Amino acid sequence: MPQRLVVIGGDAAGMSAASQARQLRDADDLEIVAFERGRFTSYSACGIPYWISGLVKDHQELIVREPETFRRDYDIDVRIRHEVTHIDLDAREVVATSSADGDREVREHFDILVYATGAVPTRPQWARTDTMGVFGVQTLDDAAALRDWLDQDEPPRRAVVVGGGYIGVEMAEALIRRGLAVTLIDRGEQPMSTVDPDMGVKVRDALAGLGIDVRSGVLVTGLDERDGRVRGVRTDDDTVPADVVVLGLGVRPNTGLAERAGLPVGVTGGIRTDLQMRVIGVPDVWAAGDCVETFHRVSGQPVHVPLGTHANKQGRVAGFNIGGSYATFPGVIGTAVTKVCELEVARTGLLEQEAHDVGYSFVTATVESSNRAGYFPGAAPMTIKLIAEQHTGQLLGAQIVGSTEAAKRIDVLAVAVWNRMSVSEMTALDLGYAPPFSPVWDPVLVAARRANDIVSNTD
Amino acid sequence: MPQRLVVIGGDAAGMSAASQARQLRDADDLEIVAFERGRFTSYSACGIPYWISGLVKDHQELIVREPETFRRDYDIDVRIRHEVTHIDLDAREVVATSSADGDREVREHFDILVYATGAVPTRPQWARTDTMGVFGVQTLDDAAALRDWLDQDEPPRRAVVVGGGYIGVEMAEALIRRGLAVTLIDRGEQPMSTVDPDMGVKVRDALAGLGIDVRSGVLVTGLDERDGRVRGVRTDDDTVPADVVVLGLGVRPNTGLAERAGLPVGVTGGIRTDLQMRVIGVPDVWAAGDCVETFHRVSGQPVHVPLGTHANKQGRVAGFNIGGSYATFPGVIGTAVTKVCELEVARTGLLEQEAHDVGYSFVTATVESSNRAGYFPGAAPMTIKLIAEQHTGQLLGAQIVGSTEAAKRIDVLAVAVWNRMSVSEMTALDLGYAPPFSPVWDPVLVAARRANDIVSNTD
Repeated sequence: MPQRLVVIGGDAAGMSAASQARQLRDADDLEIVAFERGRFTSYSACGIPYWISGLVKDHQELIVREPETFRRDYDIDVRIRHEVTHIDLDAREVVATSSADGDREVREHFDILVYATGAVPTRPQWARTDTMGVFGVQTLDDAAALRDWLDQDEPPRRAVVVGGGYIGVEMAEALIRRGLAVTLIDRGEQPMSTVDPDMGVKVRDALAGLGIDVRSGVLVTGLDERDGRVRGVRTDDDTVPADVVVLGLGVRPNTGLAERAGLPVGVTGGIRTDLQMRVIGVPDVWAAGDCVETFHRVSGQPVHVPLGTHANKQGRVAGFNIGGSYATFPGVIGTAVTKVCELEVARTGLLEQEAHDVGYSFVTATVESSNRAGYFPGAAPMTIKLIAEQHTGQLLGAQIVGSTEAAKRIDVLAVAVWNRMSVSEMTALDLGYAPPFSPVWDPVLVAARRANDIVSNTD
Repeated sequence: MPQRLVVIGGDAAGMSAASQARQLRDADDLEIVAFERGRFTSYSACGIPYWISGLVKDHQELIVREPETFRRDYDIDVRIRHEVTHIDLDAREVVATSSADGDREVREHFDILVYATGAVPTRPQWARTDTMGVFGVQTLDDAAALRDWLDQDEPPRRAVVVGGGYIGVEMAEALIRRGLAVTLIDRGEQPMSTVDPDMGVKVRDALAGLGIDVRSGVLVTGLDERDGRVRGVRTDDDTVPADVVVLGLGVRPNTGLAERAGLPVGVTGGIRTDLQMRVIGVPDVWAAGDCVETFHRVSGQPVHVPLGTHANKQGRVAGFNIGGSYATFPGVIGTAVTKVCELEVARTGLLEQEAHDVGYSFVTATVESSNRAGYFPGAAPMTIKLIAEQHTGQLLGAQIVGSTEAAKRIDVLAVAVWNRMSVSEMTALDLGYAPPFSPVWDPVLVAARRANDIVSNTD
């Protein structure tokens, strides 16, 4: 008699868990049913801005695996347009509503449960509206609706993007590429608060250089509409005319169902798991992806970091363990990269404020260097900022802003942060050198030298 | 009464040592004299192929700092065209011959000596010739002579490059870019023996694709000449016609002077130093750069790795310590990158043969991945190969071949090798993800997963 694994949520985390478990256990040992409330499984939500901009031609390109693929190649019973509405831990049963089938209710027994419902967009009161022309861009369904709106016979000309994080900035760029007039409204001091203000100002300049009207420190208070269609965005400043409004206000863990079932939720709002992605204190229930809380290896604090890369890894770890093998997810260090027009932006570890908030005493070092040898064609500047603990010199965080071949250098610093390297030891790192790829002192080494000098001189 | 520092060799290592010492000690505390036998100081020898090809327009662009700059800004008495011929450790004196001044002999007292004479090209008997049209490309003077030869009124049309290492391959590309017919002759199984044969074959294909006639496993036995000019290269196979021959046969530490003075030389032929770059057992004498032996952090063996990046670091470390501060050079891990046409090639740690030779038992994992998300414009394939110790899974080495945004990913693996990470832990690394930069599983993570699977299954 096989066990039954039920997965709630058919995107990165859930389907990684399911397919990894399948690789280790055959269908006669483990039946797998996956419920997905939308129409798609396993797609790249991060690719949505590039589909909107037209850089990616077809949304099908964003789909990694179709439901049919999971059924055929993995023997996973994927049920799209099924929303799970209730988990009964005692009865070992989930209840789902199938919108594919006249809202029919289905019940499914489980021996093992994977909770992978992802995140839901943050929506202030004014954004909870039926006004036409207002869009989130969290799911491929959202994006398809936005594309339809942009492709109307009389297409919108003025766009307002609310929120200056990764999605907001990427969407602002996508919309200006489509020829719309774009205003980016953000509550913070400047867009991209995922880097320190001294680095974020470069992002702001790049956005302004594209012709985007960037309004920082502005609070949205409501929407203007006419005939049910959006006409403008009201702020504490004035009203910005808009034919289309895109909301990029961040997300929170989607835990309503979990909380009703009594799964434990941490201070970040995410579900609490152990290192194997087992929900703490709840036998045979696992969780992974944007709905869980993880921990930051540098700050030691619980964090909620909704990123596809973590979701995939956590899902895979859960699948390994469900499959009878062994794996752990040992936390994150906050690495992220993005491209804004020709500007590349990257970070890892802690920002200044984050380091301060957890009690680190630190120095910072910011250097200008180059992606290639100065004399090599295509040489372009980049700025690297390091944050290092006083006395020990431990690398706590790093940020990079540059125009090309810049952002992924953050991975070098990420591995250094991961291994708790000191900036002193980092000055000796054996990194690749050849004129097409780096000055003889790689930018990472230049930054480490500067940081080490400052650490030494402040001792 | 100031101390006197004498530096032998005015390139990367020597001038890094001198300028770093100067930053820590004023001229009234430390006088610095640097002897350089050539006409240039501190230039990028790695940039020579790009000057030959014409990608870099002017050799001046390769010069980091002129002798005059060192005199003016650093108060360092640089004497070019001065060849040091004798070191008298007892008398604390060096003897040099000034070719700038009618071969006049000069003597200079030292309290502290930095030996930084670099490397000399390997020259088999047949290459020790005055035949016109035969060139090394080790120094800027060599390169200038080659440029002059290529720029004759009746320019050479057929080139033979002997040696398939970095310099040979880069020179072959440079010459074909200038429109010459190029034959690359190499003794080894294939060019670029700095990567494993299964990766090197991709380099061979790229060279052949450029139209370079690659002849592997061929031994050069002599030169044909007429009227003192080279006409062909004789091999154990046949004779290859040539109007110009470029020698890229590797280098050995330039230690003649040092050995005559009694400085200790190790098994690799390089001068032995401690971690601070002090010559072992010889008070107040330091050595750095292509003339020294260092050690490999993964194999534990002494190695000679003549690369500008190490020379700069070692010189800086010596300068720090001479200046009264503290720094160490903690060895190398064999990282190197190069670009052959549009192909990027990179390595770090040990090759299979090297790992075997020092007694490691290991597995290998080779994966195909992509520089960007598969749907993102510009996505291009890359191959990553990892070598991991059996049982422990410790990453021993890595190699990458790809077409763009590939080679510098080796740095991520280099930091992992440096920190003795296991491929198991590496699967969890928090690397940057966004569609323009990486698939959601970064190629490094894909490779780590595969290697970890293999390590687990062979236990």
